[in-house]
Amino acid sequence: MQEVVHNDVMKRNVNRQWLLNSRPEGMVSENNFRLAESDIPKPKMGEVLVRVLWLSFDPTQRGWMARDTYVPKIPLGEVMRSFAVGEVIESNNNPDYNVGELVTGLFGWQDYIATDGKGMTGMRKVPKGIPPNLALSLFGITGLSAYFGVNDIGQCKSGETFVVSAAAGAVGSIAGQVAKKIKGCRTIGIAGGKAKCDWIVKEAGFDGAIDYHSEDVGKRLSELCPQGIDVYFDNVGGPILDMVLERINLHARIVLCGSISRYNTNVPFGPSNYFNLTARRARMEGFLVLDYAQRYPEAVQALAKWLAEDKLKQKEDIETGLENAPKAFMKLFKGENFGKQLLKI
Amino acid sequence: MQEVVHNDVMKRNVNRQWLLNSRPEGMVSENNFRLAESDIPKPKMGEVLVRVLWLSFDPTQRGWMARDTYVPKIPLGEVMRSFAVGEVIESNNNPDYNVGELVTGLFGWQDYIATDGKGMTGMRKVPKGIPPNLALSLFGITGLSAYFGVNDIGQCKSGETFVVSAAAGAVGSIAGQVAKKIKGCRTIGIAGGKAKCDWIVKEAGFDGAIDYHSEDVGKRLSELCPQGIDVYFDNVGGPILDMVLERINLHARIVLCGSISRYNTNVPFGPSNYFNLTARRARMEGFLVLDYAQRYPEAVQALAKWLAEDKLKQKEDIETGLENAPKAFMKLFKGENFGKQLLKI
Repeated sequence: MQEVVHNDVMKRNVNRQWLLNSRPEGMVSENNFRLAESDIPKPKMGEVLVRVLWLSFDPTQRGWMARDTYVPKIPLGEVMRSFAVGEVIESNNNPDYNVGELVTGLFGWQDYIATDGKGMTGMRKVPKGIPPNLALSLFGITGLSAYFGVNDIGQCKSGETFVVSAAAGAVGSIAGQVAKKIKGCRTIGIAGGKAKCDWIVKEAGFDGAIDYHSEDVGKRLSELCPQGIDVYFDNVGGPILDMVLERINLHARIVLCGSISRYNTNVPFGPSNYFNLTARRARMEGFLVLDYAQRYPEAVQALAKWLAEDKLKQKEDIETGLENAPKAFMKLFKGENFGKQLLKI
Repeated sequence: MQEVVHNDVMKRNVNRQWLLNSRPEGMVSENNFRLAESDIPKPKMGEVLVRVLWLSFDPTQRGWMARDTYVPKIPLGEVMRSFAVGEVIESNNNPDYNVGELVTGLFGWQDYIATDGKGMTGMRKVPKGIPPNLALSLFGITGLSAYFGVNDIGQCKSGETFVVSAAAGAVGSIAGQVAKKIKGCRTIGIAGGKAKCDWIVKEAGFDGAIDYHSEDVGKRLSELCPQGIDVYFDNVGGPILDMVLERINLHARIVLCGSISRYNTNVPFGPSNYFNLTARRARMEGFLVLDYAQRYPEAVQALAKWLAEDKLKQKEDIETGLENAPKAFMKLFKGENFGKQLLKI
């Protein structure tokens, strides 16, 4: 049994839940959520009771709040949906999970959940030896997105120039390191602020960084990518996507992973340079990591190996206390998180 | 020897040439060209003299006038570049071409050209039995673009829904018919005006047409594509691209062939719904037919077979007289051409 449970919160005799109070318009606000308390659920026959321990914060969750996307939107008044890690603390004749096991799934912003483990995306055991934070970051949807985006959609080849935005973020930092250290690409990251840019180059080993807060991104892209851009791993959309499109090479691949610049706006930006895809015979392609579920073991094995070989630097930004979940979430959209945003309940 | 030469123009003893006078800003105008006369060129050793007979007008030529694209821009004061068909009327010891043969190449807007056949894109013989107009339309870059776009980039499968814009145009009409009659797709065309829409359905056999002059394109797309859109063959860009992106299916392919709505504007439109490519795991990809030169014989053979089987209806819009070249060209950007725009010198 992994020793990760906090006895103080274990003693809690109510289930705190952050419910979706309203759908976001523009920037997400604390008013979109309301805190409620309910009884600790009793697992029905075949269910287990999970004590939620860690929450994962991901930009795509704003989409879940706002509208039907690749998954149905969260109903108003229901628990805010998010990936999480918890511990099975009770079982009502469930044959698959044992008390004391760490599990991961879409548990949401709450202290407890009773589940048969068969809901949306299902529930998986956290392999022994993997700490819960890594289960949500490097081995969670963000690390896995980086893996499949670089490999399958980016199809990066040695010697190519790879650019990634939100490069100090949970996905971008891993994507850039895989491109650089595994695929052998010249790798440039775009991030906000000197601390993040320093980390990208000095810790994560990128070839260069562009601070979009203080630098002319287009000019710097031209300087740092003198041979043009072969692969762009896009986490932000907006004008930066257009600046990259202006500089793509023949047969370039634009990997559409995220578009955080548009999540909190009602007037989304359209990349007017998209037509360079024709002149350069290039491709812009979206993907969702959920489609690759059958290949997660392959990805986890590879990422774990590279981590053990010290090829991947992992950066996490950890808040504490379920009461702070909305604040932790909003950091994503203000560029205030540095690495994977997590919360330890 | 094919009997296509007009004796009257053959007797002309000067070489009329339309020169690029200025680069277009906004809509192409007649002032971008100026007509000049020069001596009929004398073929140097190894060259042939070609009497130009037919000109091909293609939207991409505006790009050639304006700026370096996938080919260098046309220098100011030089002959307007275009594909054409001509007849070899004199040879100065060229071993590859015989007097009397029809040839096609980038001869430009002029009566005569002396060439060794080795310039940009080279010179090819028009196969016996193929009339010069077909060599520029169905078997020219427009028909070939339709072929490779539908096959290689669209990867159309039977039963899918295929939408094409500029559907009564040189590329769109062939793309839609290949998708419908060869690939077995449900095929919807978007075109301007009742005559074009009638032709698409009644002559070309599409399942439906949308008149963007008089109909609400988004609403009609929803009506005519109740299962969503799997492949969009885009010749126009602009807001219609965005309306399609709103309605794409999982794993949809957007084939970027042209973007005529933007060629004459300095404030090009960016498709703000591009991010649906992620939610729908879809792809937007550009291509240029010039990259497929080695596979032209395969395409010409297939298109010729389908034409012989009466599966392809071919529509041409033919102007006459070299003096009318600018007017014929400008029709493309006003939506005034109906089918492939040609000019018979």
